[in-house]
Amino acid sequence: MNGHLAVVGLGPGGARYLTPEADAALAAAQALYGYGPYLARVPMRANQTRHASDNREERSRAAAALAHAAQGMRVAVVSGGDPGIFAMAAAVCEQIEAGPESWRALEVAVVPGVTAMLAVAARIGAPLGHDFCALSLSDNLKPWTLIEQRLDAAARAGFVIALYNPVSRARPWQFGAALERLRRHLPPSTPVVFGRAVTRADEHIDVVTLDHAAKLEADMATLVIIGSRETRVLARPGKLPLVYTPRAFLEPSA
Amino acid sequence: MNGHLAVVGLGPGGARYLTPEADAALAAAQALYGYGPYLARVPMRANQTRHASDNREERSRAAAALAHAAQGMRVAVVSGGDPGIFAMAAAVCEQIEAGPESWRALEVAVVPGVTAMLAVAARIGAPLGHDFCALSLSDNLKPWTLIEQRLDAAARAGFVIALYNPVSRARPWQFGAALERLRRHLPPSTPVVFGRAVTRADEHIDVVTLDHAAKLEADMATLVIIGSRETRVLARPGKLPLVYTPRAFLEPSA
Repeated sequence: MNGHLAVVGLGPGGARYLTPEADAALAAAQALYGYGPYLARVPMRANQTRHASDNREERSRAAAALAHAAQGMRVAVVSGGDPGIFAMAAAVCEQIEAGPESWRALEVAVVPGVTAMLAVAARIGAPLGHDFCALSLSDNLKPWTLIEQRLDAAARAGFVIALYNPVSRARPWQFGAALERLRRHLPPSTPVVFGRAVTRADEHIDVVTLDHAAKLEADMATLVIIGSRETRVLARPGKLPLVYTPRAFLEPSA
Repeated sequence: MNGHLAVVGLGPGGARYLTPEADAALAAAQALYGYGPYLARVPMRANQTRHASDNREERSRAAAALAHAAQGMRVAVVSGGDPGIFAMAAAVCEQIEAGPESWRALEVAVVPGVTAMLAVAARIGAPLGHDFCALSLSDNLKPWTLIEQRLDAAARAGFVIALYNPVSRARPWQFGAALERLRRHLPPSTPVVFGRAVTRADEHIDVVTLDHAAKLEADMATLVIIGSRETRVLARPGKLPLVYTPRAFLEPSA
């Protein structure tokens, strides 16, 4: 009997952003694996075991879930947002490649979800309305110099930039350094959006300019969007502004 | 009385990828605006008018929906995928900026959805598992030279690249030219994923290498993902391979 592993995107947090497909995949699982706070979002169901692990244990969590599925079980690994964006789907693929041949015979289904940058962008207008890139600021698995090269390339080429994992306890200076780097390429007035805990009870959205961005707090629950030279801020009476990047390219390239 | 405009992401197509939040926004609307085939995905409801328009009429569709909402109505504009990614949210913001002052007083809600690149990536593993960018190949609203600069920058810097709008009837050569451009920077063996009509009945996913990619057909319903030097293809017996980009950067920068 073949086992089945689903890697399920829970979306940004609010229950109304979980897709029916993801909900069905969770309901069908005999065992759930994930980071504790993500597992806590999933309704309890009978005849289902739960295996919580710490944030930085992606590798061992993926391996344990695969070994469990290989016993012929239906197993789900949960991810915040979308499992394919700086999350569990790549960790599972890495373990399949490194693991026993039998893991390649498992049924594997990745169930997409609304990733944080889409939810934050939606809250404030359409800052990702034109070409953009998504970059993790974590230098746990890649050198900082590579992150700098990518920030330079993205800003110079006019991409809007979504920054995942801007700050953690172990990485206190990287976000400030990234902003400083981006200021070499982008005007001080470039709009920057901070979206914290988007769609959850403690959601907080801020819009600032690049020259003031460093003064704002970011943490692991924050997604930061750095505009391009095209990105506009449209003030509205009594409301958050609309931040958007037009579909048309208007200025000559810098 | 204030009007209300929702810009609603329908997800990639399959009904099970529509979020409950999007479904609720559609149900609450008195009038629906959108491209005909997208409107056709929305269940018919009583006391709701429908205003279908052609694919390339984003500007007039957004303006008509805003004018309708400004009469104190609840109006929804529908988008395939996520409305903030090469879709209607930016078009609505543009029209608000260009339109009468009263439009800035409207309640505007953008409801995110699963955009095509997430759905295609999920079907094949985790090709977007590390830093990536999203680029529209349409040169209707930006010069082709800018698109080439961005392809160069993204490939050189090691971003995986998701290509939206690779081909249309009016733009037959651009996709081939983009592949040719990318071959200057990436090895012939770079994995390329073609995802057509993902999550719909006629879904079709292909994995090829960059040197063979030009031989495959792409159209407006196709989302193409070009791997980076890090992206791996993991063969599996009797199944599509898993395509994924590891979370760790292993090679020296090119």
